[in-house]
Amino acid sequence: MGLIVQKFGGSSVANSEKINNVADRVIKCKEAGNQVIVVVSAMGKSTDELIELALNVSKNPKSREMDMLLSTGEQISMAMLALAIQEKGHSALSLTGYQAGIITNNSHGKAKILDINTERLNRELQKGNIIVVAGFQGMSEDKEITTLGRGGSDTTAVAIAAALAADVCEIYTDVDGVYTSDPRIVKNASKLTSISYDEMLELASLGALVLQPRAVEFAKLKNVKLHVRSSFNNNSGTVVREVENLEKAMVVSGVACDKNVTKIAVFDVPDRPGIAYQLFDALAKEDINVDMIIQSHEQEERNDISFTVTRSDKKQAVNITKLVADAIGARGVASDDTVAKVSIVGAGMKTNPGVAAKMFEVLYRSNINIQMISTSEIKVSCVIEEIKAEEAIINLHKAFGLDNLVFKS
Amino acid sequence: MGLIVQKFGGSSVANSEKINNVADRVIKCKEAGNQVIVVVSAMGKSTDELIELALNVSKNPKSREMDMLLSTGEQISMAMLALAIQEKGHSALSLTGYQAGIITNNSHGKAKILDINTERLNRELQKGNIIVVAGFQGMSEDKEITTLGRGGSDTTAVAIAAALAADVCEIYTDVDGVYTSDPRIVKNASKLTSISYDEMLELASLGALVLQPRAVEFAKLKNVKLHVRSSFNNNSGTVVREVENLEKAMVVSGVACDKNVTKIAVFDVPDRPGIAYQLFDALAKEDINVDMIIQSHEQEERNDISFTVTRSDKKQAVNITKLVADAIGARGVASDDTVAKVSIVGAGMKTNPGVAAKMFEVLYRSNINIQMISTSEIKVSCVIEEIKAEEAIINLHKAFGLDNLVFKS
Repeated sequence: MGLIVQKFGGSSVANSEKINNVADRVIKCKEAGNQVIVVVSAMGKSTDELIELALNVSKNPKSREMDMLLSTGEQISMAMLALAIQEKGHSALSLTGYQAGIITNNSHGKAKILDINTERLNRELQKGNIIVVAGFQGMSEDKEITTLGRGGSDTTAVAIAAALAADVCEIYTDVDGVYTSDPRIVKNASKLTSISYDEMLELASLGALVLQPRAVEFAKLKNVKLHVRSSFNNNSGTVVREVENLEKAMVVSGVACDKNVTKIAVFDVPDRPGIAYQLFDALAKEDINVDMIIQSHEQEERNDISFTVTRSDKKQAVNITKLVADAIGARGVASDDTVAKVSIVGAGMKTNPGVAAKMFEVLYRSNINIQMISTSEIKVSCVIEEIKAEEAIINLHKAFGLDNLVFKS
Repeated sequence: MGLIVQKFGGSSVANSEKINNVADRVIKCKEAGNQVIVVVSAMGKSTDELIELALNVSKNPKSREMDMLLSTGEQISMAMLALAIQEKGHSALSLTGYQAGIITNNSHGKAKILDINTERLNRELQKGNIIVVAGFQGMSEDKEITTLGRGGSDTTAVAIAAALAADVCEIYTDVDGVYTSDPRIVKNASKLTSISYDEMLELASLGALVLQPRAVEFAKLKNVKLHVRSSFNNNSGTVVREVENLEKAMVVSGVACDKNVTKIAVFDVPDRPGIAYQLFDALAKEDINVDMIIQSHEQEERNDISFTVTRSDKKQAVNITKLVADAIGARGVASDDTVAKVSIVGAGMKTNPGVAAKMFEVLYRSNINIQMISTSEIKVSCVIEEIKAEEAIINLHKAFGLDNLVFKS
């Protein structure tokens, strides 16, 4: 008995049959005595289909109108699920992002949730309704429909769970938990029974794609317990929560690969204060997320600066960088998107020295050249040639003892 | 130069190519110096597809959730059209019914517009935007998404034109005006250059299907000039406006046929005051529109009451009628949907006696039995067997001299 938020991704609601399955699962949770709020993504590939539709009439569709268009995807799936639950004899009600009180800033296409007005949610829960909320969307203070960006439904679910102090936020997906690496590439990948927010955050950011990084951040901040599990079976999945005992934490709990990376380099940057600020402030102002940043001291009073962005931001990022490079008198700008980022993640790294060195050794023995390195307390990432990425993560996964692990639940 | 509201139906925005054509037409109007508000229906058959989708998971989908589902259709087409206009270099902006300030009652599936808050519309017009508004939808005062029922986009367009005192409300459709009868059935049907609100209202109510009756009523009430024309050519269509010279009005300007009719009969109703009130009040409370009502005096203190409703309301109407029939001690209830209503309409009828008699004669000579008759100042309708309907309207059209008319524009 409690309050449970369940989030179902697009593949879980891809057709009527799957929607009926989700309805059964939701009802089971309700009949067990829980209050239930369900957050849904758009059915199957419908978001992609809507994007394709828009590209038929516009080469550079404006993000405000794209939000109008794309927000219909979740509105369709939420209504369908509410109808399916009603048909099975339970009272249900769907709510758009706006009706659910999800207030965002007005950064169309990648809006951030500012607040959740829980009045309506509480009122409908008290009436005994199963509430189905459209994921991925909200409304800005000036009444514009916004979307949270790809995978934003996870964030919606976590934000609602946080706002209502839900007992757990269950993330249903087409895999049955978080793995030590992508099972499609690393055949011997192992399912983790639990993982810390920080580790999940690194893995999510690094392209493991099970959970949106923003959702994990939000969960960590608000201490929302996440349970990542399959919508196609009843197996227990992976619980994401605060790590309890650092001593017991795995040194490396996952190996990730992110191919959505473009490397941009600025050559011969004058060595004076404020240059980095000038460049990265210009990028930030256009909402471009910069990931790794490396500054190397090449010769006297001239530096090279390299950084990575996602490939969809490449064009804009390169344009901005060129403008700044001209303004500051740098020699030139180059970009390369034949790169990938491979990373090892583990909360136990903090207390186990030599992990990074071991990673570099594995790459060296695999004859893979490292182009950029970045480290955090619980992560080491290397940018390498994209075509070597799969070999790298298979070898790292094996070297760090992650093949075929069996966890006790 | 003025303010023009243009409404495009589903067939006019059925695909990207057609949306681009609509965009060109809208831009042409704007470039001629007008302010333009465009109201769009859902693309092609998408509303039907959404209904089919819902029926996959629910046999009797609740109307609130259906409104959530169906309102996405117009939201998609409005965003698509705004994108197409923007791509062609004009500033445009789409607005949902809610954002356009369309406030309705909360009668889901057939909501009525209570008011239009024109603040946002005015603001965006002043900025020079072409505004694209989702037809068919609004929001109730308790923030629920509502739809206005089939063809509601016409009503949206007229209501906006009225609220902003637009110079004309252009209704674009796949036919190039209002005809004296359905050209698919009556091969010699003639296009009218103008028609009065009252005539259009009768023709619209009678299944001519070019314009929603509610939209025409609204236009008459607010004196909004309508121009019904084709979205596929530049021909002048039919103007709907207040009739100026009754003497010049055609005696019969149209022959219409409505097959969406169910006849319901209550037998042996006790002859005491309040019976009709009791029955039709019960039907009205469920928002069932009753069209023709005939009460016949069969024998002492017992009457028969017959009436017609649309076929989609049949089941519910029969159920309610049976309950009332039991309560008042009537003998029984029967229903029949193998009937159709044929009608002649003309503002000149008021000043030309004998029109009804001529209609009955034509039906008699065609060997068609008349089951119910109803008349207004400008209309005579007869319920007949459905299978005789086409023969009836072809013969009436000819008898009233409507075949192959040529109007001077």
